[in-house]
Formats: sequence, C-alpha cells, structure tokens
Amino acid sequence: MRSKSFDGMVCSVADLLAAVGDRWGFLILRDLVLGLRRYEDFRRSTGVTNTTLSDRLKHLEASGVVRRQRYQSKPDRFEYLLTKKGEKIGTMMAVLAQTGANLEDNGISAPPMRFVNKATGAEVTWAYIDQSTGEIVLPNAVNVEPGSGADELMRWRLSHAKESPPEK
Amino acid sequence: MRSKSFDGMVCSVADLLAAVGDRWGFLILRDLVLGLRRYEDFRRSTGVTNTTLSDRLKHLEASGVVRRQRYQSKPDRFEYLLTKKGEKIGTMMAVLAQTGANLEDNGISAPPMRFVNKATGAEVTWAYIDQSTGEIVLPNAVNVEPGSGADELMRWRLSHAKESPPEK
Repeated sequence: MRSKSFDGMVCSVADLLAAVGDRWGFLILRDLVLGLRRYEDFRRSTGVTNTTLSDRLKHLEASGVVRRQRYQSKPDRFEYLLTKKGEKIGTMMAVLAQTGANLEDNGISAPPMRFVNKATGAEVTWAYIDQSTGEIVLPNAVNVEPGSGADELMRWRLSHAKESPPEK
Repeated sequence: MRSKSFDGMVCSVADLLAAVGDRWGFLILRDLVLGLRRYEDFRRSTGVTNTTLSDRLKHLEASGVVRRQRYQSKPDRFEYLLTKKGEKIGTMMAVLAQTGANLEDNGISAPPMRFVNKATGAEVTWAYIDQSTGEIVLPNAVNVEPGSGADELMRWRLSHAKESPPEK
C-alpha cells in the first residue's frame, strides 16, 4: 500500500512535494545533487538564514531524503548525503533546471547549467518515452488515467476535467 | 539576458520554483494540467483554505503561469487557464508524479495516476536523451557543467563540489 502524505492526499506529486518540503528543500537537493555536502556550503550556495537551513535539513532527514554523517571527531562535524530516496528525487533535478531555463520566451537562452552525457560530452535533454515502442512521445500526446492506487478524489479530478466545457 | 529571480539567485531550478511559488502552486498546476479550471474545483481537489488558494492563484497569475478568463457575465465568473509559460512547466508534471510514485521502495507500486501514449495506449515514462545519438542516458551518466549563463556562485558550486573529498 502506498502511504498517504500531505494532508492525506493520495497523489504522487503531493508525496514528492511533502518529502522535499518547500523550495529551500529543492535548492538544498540541487546542491546535494551537484555534490555539496556541508552546512556552510549550503549556506553560501542558497544564502538562506541559519534557522531556515537547519529546519529544512531536519525536514529532509525526517522525510528520509537526506542522512547526516560524521566526518570529523573532536569537535564532531557532520556532512549531509542523499539517501536512496534522495537520489531518486535527485534524478529529476536536470528536468527542473531545463524546464526553468526554458521559461522565458525571449529567444536568448543562457542557461546557468549544462547537462551532458559523461560518455560522449553531448548535450542531454529529457523526454517522454513510449514503453512499448521506445519512441519519444511529445508531452501533449501523453494522457493521464487513474492508476491502481487512485482514490475517489483522484478519479473525480480526472473525470471531471474531461467533462469541463472546452476553452472559448 | 536571463532574469534573476528568487532573491537574485542565478539558477534555472530557482527560477522555476519562484514561478510556481510553493507546493500549493505545484498542486494547482497539477490540477490545471489535468484540466481543472475553476476556483471551486481547485478548492475541492486540494482541500486548501480560501485564503491560501486565492493567494497562490494570484501568485501564479503574477508570475505569468496562469491567466484568468471570464466565462460568464452577471454575475461575472472566471476560470483559470495555463499560459504558454504554465504549459511549459506543465510538461514536467508527469515527471514529478512518476518520481513521487517511485519513492517508497516497498516492492508494491500502486500509482494514483498512469501516463499513457494517446496514440498507442502504452505506458509512458520519462528519460534523459543524448542529443547527438538519440540514445537514453541513465541519470548517473549525466554530468553538470557551467552553462553560458552561469554566474560566479554557480561556478563555485560546480567546481567546489568536484573538489569535495569522496564519501567514506
């Protein structure tokens, strides 16, 4: 059985958001994916206050996304690492970055990050793939249906949307 | 030139998060992608309070993700539609959902939503694609490099991470 999170909402998007917490959580995750591990580095990278950073790191630890590991004794010092769950979320960080880089339709694109294939050095972008044919599927050719874990509210969302009148 | 958002941070992930706002923003976007348009429907779908929902819809409108359109006069009633920018963010909703559905490693997967190819009915999943070969690239074979829009802080993040000692 899947767990209910985010105020009991049965939705995988809600589960993901509950695990990450908020946008600071996403930015800490971004940093972890990039290879940062230390509190002071997250501070510098995000510019967030100590209170917020401590709080968000605790949230990420509590939701099983991050684990804390001692790397020095006397005095004890800790670093933060992605758990397996955190790594799963981390896999989509390039999707967030590429989508964000593409938002302003001003014809000039100067992305802060480039994603390349380690093996070939070629640019990497994300896409949807048809599991039966292996072909790329354009986003507007993807349909959403209730899955085996759908509750009544999810079925309502999906059926109600289809009943809505077409855009004028 | 790309715009700076989210406290001036030069990062496409931060840009995306600033546009959406918070997790309520993501859930409203999810509903818009699924085809919901009306205030009462967002209320029912998310269970959020009126104050929060109004506030988040205003944020999404201000950040150019959503537009409000009158669908009835006397009394005036409005519905919400994705802008072009909103549709771009919407394309990755299935990535969030699939990643979220995959977080709990309990061997039983009952996703609330299924994503299928409209044309074939086959399951659709997301992947990274090498732009030179068209081949699928596994997430751990994707490298991050500074892009043409990288600022000093982004260069620091990327170089500092590589200097960090390997995990013990």
